[in-house]
Amino acid sequence: MSSFSKINGKIVLHILGFLLIIEGLFMFTGMPFSIYYCENKCLSLLWSGLITAVTGGLLWLITRKADRVIGKREGYIIVTATWIVISLFGTLPYMISGAIPKFTDAFFETISGFTTTGASILTDIEALPKGLLFWRAMTHWIGGMGIIVLSVAILPLLGIGGMQLFVAEMPGITPDKLHPRITQTAKRLWLIYVVLTFAEVILLMFGGMNFFDSLCHSFATMATGGFSTQNDSIAGYSAYIQYIIILFMIFAGTNFTLHYLGFHGKIREIWKNEEYRYYITFTFGFAILIAVLIIWNSDISAEKAFRDSLFQVVSIVTTTGFVTSDYLLWPGFIWIFIFLLMFIGGSAGSTGGGIKIARQILLLKNSALEFKRMIHPQAVIPVKFNGKSVTPEIIHLVMAFFLFYILTFFAGTFVMTLMGMDFITAIGATIASLGNIGPGLGEVGPVENYSGLPTGGKWLSSFLMLLGRLELFTILILFSPSFWRK
Amino acid sequence: MSSFSKINGKIVLHILGFLLIIEGLFMFTGMPFSIYYCENKCLSLLWSGLITAVTGGLLWLITRKADRVIGKREGYIIVTATWIVISLFGTLPYMISGAIPKFTDAFFETISGFTTTGASILTDIEALPKGLLFWRAMTHWIGGMGIIVLSVAILPLLGIGGMQLFVAEMPGITPDKLHPRITQTAKRLWLIYVVLTFAEVILLMFGGMNFFDSLCHSFATMATGGFSTQNDSIAGYSAYIQYIIILFMIFAGTNFTLHYLGFHGKIREIWKNEEYRYYITFTFGFAILIAVLIIWNSDISAEKAFRDSLFQVVSIVTTTGFVTSDYLLWPGFIWIFIFLLMFIGGSAGSTGGGIKIARQILLLKNSALEFKRMIHPQAVIPVKFNGKSVTPEIIHLVMAFFLFYILTFFAGTFVMTLMGMDFITAIGATIASLGNIGPGLGEVGPVENYSGLPTGGKWLSSFLMLLGRLELFTILILFSPSFWRK
Repeated sequence: MSSFSKINGKIVLHILGFLLIIEGLFMFTGMPFSIYYCENKCLSLLWSGLITAVTGGLLWLITRKADRVIGKREGYIIVTATWIVISLFGTLPYMISGAIPKFTDAFFETISGFTTTGASILTDIEALPKGLLFWRAMTHWIGGMGIIVLSVAILPLLGIGGMQLFVAEMPGITPDKLHPRITQTAKRLWLIYVVLTFAEVILLMFGGMNFFDSLCHSFATMATGGFSTQNDSIAGYSAYIQYIIILFMIFAGTNFTLHYLGFHGKIREIWKNEEYRYYITFTFGFAILIAVLIIWNSDISAEKAFRDSLFQVVSIVTTTGFVTSDYLLWPGFIWIFIFLLMFIGGSAGSTGGGIKIARQILLLKNSALEFKRMIHPQAVIPVKFNGKSVTPEIIHLVMAFFLFYILTFFAGTFVMTLMGMDFITAIGATIASLGNIGPGLGEVGPVENYSGLPTGGKWLSSFLMLLGRLELFTILILFSPSFWRK
Repeated sequence: MSSFSKINGKIVLHILGFLLIIEGLFMFTGMPFSIYYCENKCLSLLWSGLITAVTGGLLWLITRKADRVIGKREGYIIVTATWIVISLFGTLPYMISGAIPKFTDAFFETISGFTTTGASILTDIEALPKGLLFWRAMTHWIGGMGIIVLSVAILPLLGIGGMQLFVAEMPGITPDKLHPRITQTAKRLWLIYVVLTFAEVILLMFGGMNFFDSLCHSFATMATGGFSTQNDSIAGYSAYIQYIIILFMIFAGTNFTLHYLGFHGKIREIWKNEEYRYYITFTFGFAILIAVLIIWNSDISAEKAFRDSLFQVVSIVTTTGFVTSDYLLWPGFIWIFIFLLMFIGGSAGSTGGGIKIARQILLLKNSALEFKRMIHPQAVIPVKFNGKSVTPEIIHLVMAFFLFYILTFFAGTFVMTLMGMDFITAIGATIASLGNIGPGLGEVGPVENYSGLPTGGKWLSSFLMLLGRLELFTILILFSPSFWRK
């Protein structure tokens, strides 16, 4: 395997080591809560943090002489390896404390956190020690941070699924100039991420939620994660708190470069962004439609119907996965509508998962133009996005992404049913994992959890979360022989 | 609407008139069976034939001075209008005889025939007079004839979904030279169609099937239709007859230009065709796989399991829809496998419907190359098909076709559930109609029929049959404003 060795493995390990140090430090942040709530298992976070940080430190030291050259191939490997390795070490608090004794379950819960999915195998969330609940929410928040850098800085460089188109709008950032500015971009967007998170914490506390729960829910909201500290998710909280969470889910599902514009007072420019306009219009449009159907078919008050509907539509479209009511119990066919919403996804450059609204827009626009092209086969008729022509290459990448997504959905569903799941549960678990949503249909529905899945199903679901979170190609390319050849 | 008038409506009507004359004549061909079986309703075919032929004749005469210029837009209109108009007149025998009194049902049955779908609203097929059973089979056979001309000669000219790629292989036919040769091509391929049909008749009679049933089943086989004269489809016939029907379903699902090569003894060139190789390999591969699973999970003999499996796989892949056993009762997850097979479709240039194997190959090959392109973004890496490079434009058309197909499937399923169908029935009815297969899942499964669908569901199903049969774009383009503008 001489061609294999051409990949700069040392720098990969060096970076992974560095990230493990960071992860270890983040684990310590849960300890104050363990101590405050007088938990007897507070040492599990200390030990986990130490093991993670020390392992990372050793790895970092051993490989410190690594060649600093990071090519595209190293880029793909680093991204995939990061999510896997931090998820492996992220299981330590659960395993050491004995809160989640089985490795499969602990890994599922952790990767569900880091991929900002929010699918859980816990049947009694409230029984978990506070320190671990904090770590659980923290995996979301770290994952969200990772996704911001990934979607705005790294994936466009790697040329994944047309992402280069959607991020070129931040002032001073052009795809070709992006590389030296990754650090600067990341810092700017992280600042926004942190500010929004703490704004939510304050607004939730203002509504009577305690500091701990506010923090955990804010972490889960801004990462479009969905882990709650409560067994009934957000259902038990006041209308005020539900509306606050709706607002911040919408923020989290927005392209973060638009928040950057917003922080600089350029509100009008935000509305000029086509993806944002569709995102807001469709979310509220669908929410009103579903609210009307609920009011029609039941005797729930208009406000409650609208709030439930808006909460659930926003939660699904942004791929957060918080729950205030069981949409599977809504009248008639609405659950199928919710199922279809699961294929939409958040905005490009947000922490939301799924196919992404920008890709949907390009696909729809391109579809409409196909007819024009058939009538005028000689004319070059490009798709316009945000007022600019999109190259056929980008359209091709977007279409290819969509095809892979649908194929993965079908294949995932099929393998899930092989494992004995019923059809509805299988499609629900597949799309909720692949789209990083969390709650699905059937036995993995909004008031259920993933604990009943067979072991193989949990691993498949974990794999689908990773696939979806890393925009499919980042992972799939590692299975391509031409990747390892040179 | 001055721009509207620029479409040469007269020539459209002229051609429709001509086709109605032909349809009327075909209706008469069922009369000998009505007379032979001493049926008291034999006049319904006579009257239907007369009404159809006379209407057609009048239309043809009135418009005989039409300008002979047929543009692309007239082409689209003629194709869609043909299938609708012959289906409307095709209901006459059912309506006049009173065998299918409701217009919705009669139209469903007729368009299901002409689109070679084979979905039926009849609960007792054997109760139908022989003359009508013959007409029912005849709608398949006429539809199959139409499809051969359409897929080999007309759709490539209209530039639908990359079809131009798949038909350029017939000796002496190149896309740019095709136009003046449509008649010649059609005649050659029709001859093959007729010869194969009568070969099947003879082989079925050799197995003890009577002439009438042999004829009807052969019509339904070669058109990949699926209407049987028996309530239990092919299940009651001998193994010999089932194998014969398997063989001819395979023939019907083959690109007819390959039969042309075969008739000229160029067997080796047939195997050089990539689509054919995949078609045969996958069909037998899947059949063996399913047979093994059936044997594993039940105590059916190996031969019976293999025959049932092969029959059903061939029937679904070629989109014929004949049934020998209820695949919904097969053990475990096999029905989901069958469901996935419904998305494959026959070969391009065959009478089979669906997405088509050639498109699947291009999609898969292109998908594999995406990774290569990501690693080498500067290189131009084309898809190869039958040893030749495929242009990016064709790949784009194929991808667009697939996207429209999947979107239509999702939208169709959603609207079906709006009409009150359960989810499994809805996906089954949608894909079985859109793919021109016939039997679906749930309440429209292989031993059920479409009689229980609500009226709206029957019309939606009819529309999906037409959409699928005319490769989506032919119909959808008529809804595009740019089609009517000029």
